[in-house]
Amino acid sequence: MAKNEELMDKIVSLCKRRGFVFQGSEIYGGLGGTWDYGPLGVMLKNNIKNIWRKRFVEDRNDMYETDAAILMNQGVWKASGHAEGFQDPLVECSKCKHRFRPDQIDPLSVKEGKCPDCGGKLGAARQFNMMFQTHVGAVQDESSISYLRPETAQGMFVNFKNIVDSFHPKLPFGMAQIGKAFRNEIAPRDFLFRTREFEQMEIEYFVKPGDWEKTFEHFRGEMKAFMTDVGLDKDKVHELEVPDGERAHYSKRTIDFEFDFPFGRNELYGLAYRTDFDLKQHSEFSKVDLSYYDEETKKRFIPHCIEPSFGVDRTVLAILTDAYHEDDLGSSASSETAAGDKEKRVYLKLSPKLAPVKIAVFPLLRNKLQLVEKAREVFKTLKEKSIAMEFDDNGNIGKRYRRQDEIGTPYCVTVDFETVEKGNGVTVRDRDTGKQERIAEEKLLDYFSGLC
Amino acid sequence: MAKNEELMDKIVSLCKRRGFVFQGSEIYGGLGGTWDYGPLGVMLKNNIKNIWRKRFVEDRNDMYETDAAILMNQGVWKASGHAEGFQDPLVECSKCKHRFRPDQIDPLSVKEGKCPDCGGKLGAARQFNMMFQTHVGAVQDESSISYLRPETAQGMFVNFKNIVDSFHPKLPFGMAQIGKAFRNEIAPRDFLFRTREFEQMEIEYFVKPGDWEKTFEHFRGEMKAFMTDVGLDKDKVHELEVPDGERAHYSKRTIDFEFDFPFGRNELYGLAYRTDFDLKQHSEFSKVDLSYYDEETKKRFIPHCIEPSFGVDRTVLAILTDAYHEDDLGSSASSETAAGDKEKRVYLKLSPKLAPVKIAVFPLLRNKLQLVEKAREVFKTLKEKSIAMEFDDNGNIGKRYRRQDEIGTPYCVTVDFETVEKGNGVTVRDRDTGKQERIAEEKLLDYFSGLC
Repeated sequence: MAKNEELMDKIVSLCKRRGFVFQGSEIYGGLGGTWDYGPLGVMLKNNIKNIWRKRFVEDRNDMYETDAAILMNQGVWKASGHAEGFQDPLVECSKCKHRFRPDQIDPLSVKEGKCPDCGGKLGAARQFNMMFQTHVGAVQDESSISYLRPETAQGMFVNFKNIVDSFHPKLPFGMAQIGKAFRNEIAPRDFLFRTREFEQMEIEYFVKPGDWEKTFEHFRGEMKAFMTDVGLDKDKVHELEVPDGERAHYSKRTIDFEFDFPFGRNELYGLAYRTDFDLKQHSEFSKVDLSYYDEETKKRFIPHCIEPSFGVDRTVLAILTDAYHEDDLGSSASSETAAGDKEKRVYLKLSPKLAPVKIAVFPLLRNKLQLVEKAREVFKTLKEKSIAMEFDDNGNIGKRYRRQDEIGTPYCVTVDFETVEKGNGVTVRDRDTGKQERIAEEKLLDYFSGLC
Repeated sequence: MAKNEELMDKIVSLCKRRGFVFQGSEIYGGLGGTWDYGPLGVMLKNNIKNIWRKRFVEDRNDMYETDAAILMNQGVWKASGHAEGFQDPLVECSKCKHRFRPDQIDPLSVKEGKCPDCGGKLGAARQFNMMFQTHVGAVQDESSISYLRPETAQGMFVNFKNIVDSFHPKLPFGMAQIGKAFRNEIAPRDFLFRTREFEQMEIEYFVKPGDWEKTFEHFRGEMKAFMTDVGLDKDKVHELEVPDGERAHYSKRTIDFEFDFPFGRNELYGLAYRTDFDLKQHSEFSKVDLSYYDEETKKRFIPHCIEPSFGVDRTVLAILTDAYHEDDLGSSASSETAAGDKEKRVYLKLSPKLAPVKIAVFPLLRNKLQLVEKAREVFKTLKEKSIAMEFDDNGNIGKRYRRQDEIGTPYCVTVDFETVEKGNGVTVRDRDTGKQERIAEEKLLDYFSGLC
């Protein structure tokens, strides 16, 4: 466990040091449960979203992507059950007004009813709604209450009729959405795992009632295929069949895809059969008929829904923890010593599809003009093929390799004297093995054709 | 003017009918100032964002893209001035508590101090903060107040030091961000123009104090180039030099790029020289030194900042109003008559780069298997080149052309009997001219190579 806590610390530190993820509002002491993505984090996240969009939207012809507003009419949350039911129990101090989750303070405090902060009297446990509330418009009263959506799902259900009216899709078809959601977690924790602001990739797939089981299986397979797409270690993913009584009230079947994070096995993705609950609720609460007319059977009914749900930030975290490696390669100390520990090479074993930078190009020495010029030429040739590239002539070559290893760049191309004086090609270094091979310049594009 | 209002109505209607943009929370009567993007809107928006990212981030080596959280520590907004200064004047009724902007209610009501809704007594005009407020964490007091960011800019300023520490960039360099921002507008209006939830693409570019003028000119040119990238009509764009006294207090020079929207000339983009105001304020309020050490001159100073700012939704709106065309092409009535008006062909003249669908492929008839099969084959061949495609065999061919015209698809490929019986190629129809030409199947990829 200590080792795993250490691993999380190392990953958080690497993310900050190299510009993947920073603490939100850091210079102001942060804001709990918020994180800011730096340049490499943005690229990694975009790669994940693009792979998801390709598999679940672009490569299919039955998926309609939407981008609904985060602020929604409060009626949505009454229908969905969130306004009433999306709650955690909390006790409030009558004196300092601080609130606590009974299971997260000293049991003695709870028993004695004493506030752990000021010693004041704690009230009885009350339900605390996890939606962030605000007011929309000039009037501040009940009618103007709005919430930051706690899930992207409802943005799709309320647009179900719009999709049907605009595109006339035949069942089965789905809606997809990538977007932010917000939950006022009392205890955000574990870096990107439990945050107050996060990004989801969700699908609501609508079927005839009798078709739910085969569709459920289809998406179960597709979700696994996506995990392979992003290179997650299969052995760390576990399917948990959520038993009766533990599922959300609307779900008749749910599988949680759990992942072995360094802090323990925990939920990564979810797949739920939501029956016709959502569309029914919205039909009832909005008074707008959300039924579907089936031209084949001439029958009108409320479609049933399968929901594959993915967290972007959890995907980032799973990928990073999976990719983090240390070895002694290239270290001056070949065995582990107290001092040698510092020399360990750290690298992210990211699949080339995910790596923010695919190829880094260096001149061996920064102050040799002919090396720099040739390196820029090589850089330009590859960059023209729309490969995500970096040029680096800062510091010494060892430092540059170290940086590229830590950001997960699969290939480093170095221009040295053999390149410019003997026309003997460039060296290409493999991130994982550290091995270098010499490749003729004119063969570089071929060598990297898989990255274009 | 009537004609222009009519144009806006037509665009809003097309957006809903074809699945570009829907009213937010529509089935619940909407939520003022929020809009939901449908599938075609998502694609159009993504095309815009990708073009922007290519020009301003990927094709440069001095730009660091971030994605900061929407919820930020309230200290950020004290430093930026938004907590105090981001306000509209409002009068509140002492009886029904409704609030009004004095300039937007009957002047008599203001003069008599009577509420236009209930006749109650209106209070004096007070300042109303346009930031959406919420509380983060379990405690609801002053200390837990947070706001939905009213601009993405501050998410970059507070990460300035992180970027410097992680990437050690040399001045000049910039930060870029695409993300949502929120303003509690009292009177949202004009479709996507003035909304409460919107998406920004912003750059904060940091320079040595003496370099601001040439950098300002550089981005002035780049912004114009971007407008050309997305195909905006140059004649509708006007630069407005914002005079002294009308600029934001921190700005020493601002140019508004205004656009001739159907509802009048109004702000599309902005370019501001913000001096060292932001980094100075954040240094002071956060007590974290945000100065920059220049290794050449061995001096430490606060960089100055140039801010090119773009609204994604306003770009979408400008593009749509610019692209909307009507003509009599293919109409049964060749002259304008009362009835003939209905027959007008509507099309979006979107540049192929922006069009959500680049090529639609049809079989001439839907119930001829050989046509459908060949059309699917043609579709597959083109789609493999990563072109955004649609296959349509619904309704008659005229209806299909009409739909593709309305969503701005530049090319429609039709497989007919000549294709399958005589091997005589397919027809390719040009959206703007309506002209069809016959192209040999084996030459299609070449014909469309510009779209790959």
